[in-house]
Amino acid sequence: MKAVVYKGPRELAVEEVPDARIEDPTDALIRITTTNICGSDLHMYEGRTDVEAGTVLGHENMGVVEDVGSAVGRVSAGDRVSVPFNIACGTCRSCNEGWTSFCERTNPIDGMQGAAYGYANMGPYPGGQAEYLRVPYADFNLLDLPSGDEHENDFTTLSDIFPTGWHGTRLSGLEPGDTVAVFGAGPVGLLAAHSARLQGARGVYVVDHQRDRLALVERFECAPIDATKGDPVEQIMDATAGLGVDRGVEAVGWQAHDPQGDEDPAMVLDELAQVVKAHGGIGVVGVYVPEDPGGPNELAQQGRPAWSYGTFFSKGQQMATGQAPVKRYNRQLRDLIIDGRAKPSELVSHELDLTEAVDAYDKFDKRLDGWTKVLLRPSA
Amino acid sequence: MKAVVYKGPRELAVEEVPDARIEDPTDALIRITTTNICGSDLHMYEGRTDVEAGTVLGHENMGVVEDVGSAVGRVSAGDRVSVPFNIACGTCRSCNEGWTSFCERTNPIDGMQGAAYGYANMGPYPGGQAEYLRVPYADFNLLDLPSGDEHENDFTTLSDIFPTGWHGTRLSGLEPGDTVAVFGAGPVGLLAAHSARLQGARGVYVVDHQRDRLALVERFECAPIDATKGDPVEQIMDATAGLGVDRGVEAVGWQAHDPQGDEDPAMVLDELAQVVKAHGGIGVVGVYVPEDPGGPNELAQQGRPAWSYGTFFSKGQQMATGQAPVKRYNRQLRDLIIDGRAKPSELVSHELDLTEAVDAYDKFDKRLDGWTKVLLRPSA
Amino acid sequence: MKAVVYKGPRELAVEEVPDARIEDPTDALIRITTTNICGSDLHMYEGRTDVEAGTVLGHENMGVVEDVGSAVGRVSAGDRVSVPFNIACGTCRSCNEGWTSFCERTNPIDGMQGAAYGYANMGPYPGGQAEYLRVPYADFNLLDLPSGDEHENDFTTLSDIFPTGWHGTRLSGLEPGDTVAVFGAGPVGLLAAHSARLQGARGVYVVDHQRDRLALVERFECAPIDATKGDPVEQIMDATAGLGVDRGVEAVGWQAHDPQGDEDPAMVLDELAQVVKAHGGIGVVGVYVPEDPGGPNELAQQGRPAWSYGTFFSKGQQMATGQAPVKRYNRQLRDLIIDGRAKPSELVSHELDLTEAVDAYDKFDKRLDGWTKVLLRPSA
Amino acid sequence: MKAVVYKGPRELAVEEVPDARIEDPTDALIRITTTNICGSDLHMYEGRTDVEAGTVLGHENMGVVEDVGSAVGRVSAGDRVSVPFNIACGTCRSCNEGWTSFCERTNPIDGMQGAAYGYANMGPYPGGQAEYLRVPYADFNLLDLPSGDEHENDFTTLSDIFPTGWHGTRLSGLEPGDTVAVFGAGPVGLLAAHSARLQGARGVYVVDHQRDRLALVERFECAPIDATKGDPVEQIMDATAGLGVDRGVEAVGWQAHDPQGDEDPAMVLDELAQVVKAHGGIGVVGVYVPEDPGGPNELAQQGRPAWSYGTFFSKGQQMATGQAPVKRYNRQLRDLIIDGRAKPSELVSHELDLTEAVDAYDKFDKRLDGWTKVLLRPSA
Repeated sequence: MKAVVYKGPRELAVEEVPDARIEDPTDALIRITTTNICGSDLHMYEGRTDVEAGTVLGHENMGVVEDVGSAVGRVSAGDRVSVPFNIACGTCRSCNEGWTSFCERTNPIDGMQGAAYGYANMGPYPGGQAEYLRVPYADFNLLDLPSGDEHENDFTTLSDIFPTGWHGTRLSGLEPGDTVAVFGAGPVGLLAAHSARLQGARGVYVVDHQRDRLALVERFECAPIDATKGDPVEQIMDATAGLGVDRGVEAVGWQAHDPQGDEDPAMVLDELAQVVKAHGGIGVVGVYVPEDPGGPNELAQQGRPAWSYGTFFSKGQQMATGQAPVKRYNRQLRDLIIDGRAKPSELVSHELDLTEAVDAYDKFDKRLDGWTKVLLRPSA
Repeated sequence: MKAVVYKGPRELAVEEVPDARIEDPTDALIRITTTNICGSDLHMYEGRTDVEAGTVLGHENMGVVEDVGSAVGRVSAGDRVSVPFNIACGTCRSCNEGWTSFCERTNPIDGMQGAAYGYANMGPYPGGQAEYLRVPYADFNLLDLPSGDEHENDFTTLSDIFPTGWHGTRLSGLEPGDTVAVFGAGPVGLLAAHSARLQGARGVYVVDHQRDRLALVERFECAPIDATKGDPVEQIMDATAGLGVDRGVEAVGWQAHDPQGDEDPAMVLDELAQVVKAHGGIGVVGVYVPEDPGGPNELAQQGRPAWSYGTFFSKGQQMATGQAPVKRYNRQLRDLIIDGRAKPSELVSHELDLTEAVDAYDKFDKRLDGWTKVLLRPSA
Repeated sequence: MKAVVYKGPRELAVEEVPDARIEDPTDALIRITTTNICGSDLHMYEGRTDVEAGTVLGHENMGVVEDVGSAVGRVSAGDRVSVPFNIACGTCRSCNEGWTSFCERTNPIDGMQGAAYGYANMGPYPGGQAEYLRVPYADFNLLDLPSGDEHENDFTTLSDIFPTGWHGTRLSGLEPGDTVAVFGAGPVGLLAAHSARLQGARGVYVVDHQRDRLALVERFECAPIDATKGDPVEQIMDATAGLGVDRGVEAVGWQAHDPQGDEDPAMVLDELAQVVKAHGGIGVVGVYVPEDPGGPNELAQQGRPAWSYGTFFSKGQQMATGQAPVKRYNRQLRDLIIDGRAKPSELVSHELDLTEAVDAYDKFDKRLDGWTKVLLRPSA
Repeated sequence: MKAVVYKGPRELAVEEVPDARIEDPTDALIRITTTNICGSDLHMYEGRTDVEAGTVLGHENMGVVEDVGSAVGRVSAGDRVSVPFNIACGTCRSCNEGWTSFCERTNPIDGMQGAAYGYANMGPYPGGQAEYLRVPYADFNLLDLPSGDEHENDFTTLSDIFPTGWHGTRLSGLEPGDTVAVFGAGPVGLLAAHSARLQGARGVYVVDHQRDRLALVERFECAPIDATKGDPVEQIMDATAGLGVDRGVEAVGWQAHDPQGDEDPAMVLDELAQVVKAHGGIGVVGVYVPEDPGGPNELAQQGRPAWSYGTFFSKGQQMATGQAPVKRYNRQLRDLIIDGRAKPSELVSHELDLTEAVDAYDKFDKRLDGWTKVLLRPSA
């Protein structure tokens, strides 16, 4: 089958690889209808991780069940499904408690919890930027979708970015009527803002410095804060009569760039501590890493951004972090899409054939204007 | 009346000051029966804050109502009461939501929320290391106690250290059956451990390096971890079969000392990120400050401990912080004391006359062996 | 001043009564700009309670502060305010825990908790269907509104019906993405439906048998279920593919009428137990009374509707009940109104002068078509 | 293999039945070491259900894994395990949300959710009062226990009565420091009381009228309320200075008997509504049925106890009900047993050979003095 294969930093190929197939009785085999390039794929693409050459990329997958193992009973061939990026066993303590993002059994690396498709350090599972995908523990992991192809571009966000954005708002402790500041108007930030709106937030401010993304903020009926036009903290304090916001969401991650274009992993955390009110909450879904040999200075390399923790404590703030347990949210989000209330597809900019992936990675990585979200169609 | 007055770094006096009195119709005047020296008083004593000379110290107060203002109706003269260290108006948004530690009306300093008695930056309210204390918004702030003098040494912990320890466990997200690591076996850490036990925690590990405190850990039926005998993280990982703990509580604060005796404000946060499990929670009640001119290096001076935030995020941990809203907990803790289940007085080491305060501060600050908690009796 | 006075069953008068005035230092005096007739006023009007002749009615009040007592500091003359129907002291245990609807100090009747303006058994407090109103514990009870007269017909719902509708959804355990059945499309039911929508509910079904109310259901973008067209349970089961709904809200109360027009206090509870899914939740804000001498049979008279409790248990359902603690919600609802997301005024049908109250009660009680919600303007 | 077989009302036999065996790849086969007679088995024994003749009884099972199906990976032969009474698939919506007691896939009866071993209407699954038991979805359902035979009589309560008692307290909304009234000092009531204590409750009152059970209440360090000595409501109101309790737990069920010995399914619900404070919570784990042809009157037969619902509403109480999702609690309870804090085995009165089951049912059903909890050892 054809798949997108990582060769080395900024080097990919769409090439033939061995067919995905049923390996265990609890597996399902999925024919991919849509798979996306995720901002976090760029960490691998840029050589900032130790992903192995030969890895098939892609963790935002959906499609149709082609075949199931002998122990699979809830889903069956022909079902249209969304595949959460987390690979979870469904029976360990973390899974029992709803933390599929920290499954204790699917990642074979010692001391690591949580697995994913086609991702550095997340286990030996090929990705879904390919024609077919093997899904372990299929009865547990797969989410049913209505058959047909309606809402394809909405449903494709259910594997990662929509639940991840939603998770950001849940981690922040958002309540109806709250005001929120979202840092980063990439796909996750935009869908965090959309999520906040769906839950009854009122002032939703979204900070970015890119024109195309700020335009999407408005499409989601939120307030864009253009970081090129002045300190975003000041802009938000002004917009809230000096009160700051009830909640903050971090959707940028450790590779944040300051106005001069230099990486500064402490910058967004600093801004959040300033802009969130006393006893307010912060949800962090932008990725921070425990070590980053390519970081701009020694502390960054050690995963130790020197952010203003003293301010955070003095204000009695709360912070919750980490990869989203997709299953906790994807069912409700699917239903909100079907109901017409949620429209995450607003942010999709490109729908390409799988064979166009190499060029698409290049342009998405360069953040060319208008390249906000790229979908790939393996079976197109 | 007699009171303990701050004169300058490591300089106090017990001297006559103007009598406390009713100033507003919502005030009460309290005759202090017991008031304590708190570990946080030492920050002022050591000159690490900008508290003004002339300030009467003391925020851990209890006593008997001597008089009330014309608008006070719930409490009356003769009532025995505990005085929460937070001074809260009871009617602002923070108070309405139960965050009396961030009252929006009682601290006159611009941009500051939360007030306290006799404390740097916490408003113009004299402390209670004195014969009498003025309590604003008395109906809202005061907690009724059974009359008489039973449980005096237990009830005296209700103004701060017991609710603060309890808050640490609530901020950590503790559930019955959880394991917990508490860093710091001072009064707050010990009562956090006691609180965890009362809520059904099982393995409760308490880290310290001082012999007298570690002995108290055992008296509270928890597991002492002696930091002088090896890395506390390793000791706890060994004790939990490599799983780490479900929850962590920080009860040390920014003036943590490493094994060599140097201040290292990042050390305990690092240890917590390591020892707490993935998707576990951390409650921080040890104090971290936004700026500390006396700090050991530039980052410390700016309130920016460079702790291992990347590990924290990768493990999907949660952290909640800040001063305890005493009222949220003191009623239940009072009742648990009366019921005999809670015995916070176990940690009291000294009961002295108010006139002995100068010497007591000196010895408590030096952490002389056995000086774990000092009570002062103004009316003795 | 002029006020609406209860004389006896179905007998009211608008007449001169002694002026409301400041009586305690914590009081405020409010000049009423808008006050409403509530469905629950009709229980008194119809003689189904033991309210005393001479009582000034009216618990849905808003206006402008005319004067304040000496101990009032947060609000001051000239402030535009909403007056929650609950009169709460702000300092008892119930108030501390956010249950202002069960204040332990403001109702002088032995064993009763919770007080209100102008209502049977809710204490000696005159109502606000009058030119002026005395508000006890003003700093605690009053909600600030933006000055001027914008949103008057929205804000007037903040004293009772909007928070009560919202409370119904909170009591039901509603989560974003849930489906909901609301029984009763009176003002509270309609605003429960509106509340559910604001919190991200998807299928919101609202049951009633009156045409004018069902039309309003559609104006709030919810699904009307016309009980005159067949069993509402069947209609909702059909609409949900047999799954039932996640949550139910009771907004009818004990005086429910069956299709034949007879009172049946068990009917709506039965329907809820049937239509809500296993382990689903039910919020009850329609009023049920402990005794009702005018009830249709002996069990009804004893406040013992014989509803299908065995079904409720077998399905593992949850139910929470009671009068709304308005303060818990009114601030956020005010902000959602200002933000334009909430528009509760959609249900207002009549805006009348206070002097028209007698006729208005008569028509509202008869449920004449189009009389969905009546506002009175004392100062018009 | 030998098993306890239901023949008809009050008619059982211990006889040979076909061996339990692996039927599906996700099954495990368990050699039973301990299985118990549950109070709810008596509903079947007494002929109050429509259980079929030939059914092997027993849903409180533990033992050692003898064999596993091809898709089982988390547990393996030789593991000592506890078997939750709920049979859950682990992959439906209810299971995903932690409601294994309402699994949507394991009960083949149309419209029924939730399955169990050897129980009327709970699916075609033979019980474990036998030498061997087939466990579906073994990886999901089984709880690991430390190997050996330590704590056997404690661990045997993990399959039902301890989690069910604990569930009662969770459903009641219990918080540390709360007071609680538990109605019924059978095994579930006693362990609800024990659970409340473990979570930091203070006054825990347990109502019963049998001497042996009241003695056990004291062994669990709770306060016995002897219903033969006067109205239990009055006794509890006296003990709480008229305040009532914060929480109530129903552990009796619909076959409650009044002081005259007549069945009265409304009695305990009435008592709870009276004894629980305003805005307090009630957890119901005693069983109420939607229909009961053998009930004492028409309403009882229809599952409609006419309890004082009007009082319940007026006090703004909350009630949550239903069978316990054992998996939500059994891991923590196991750990509390290992830690020595929980000692549920205190209530075990008899340990018998499986062959003694017929006689044991007879005596347990007659509530002979001292027959509080019967354990059966199939392999003894």
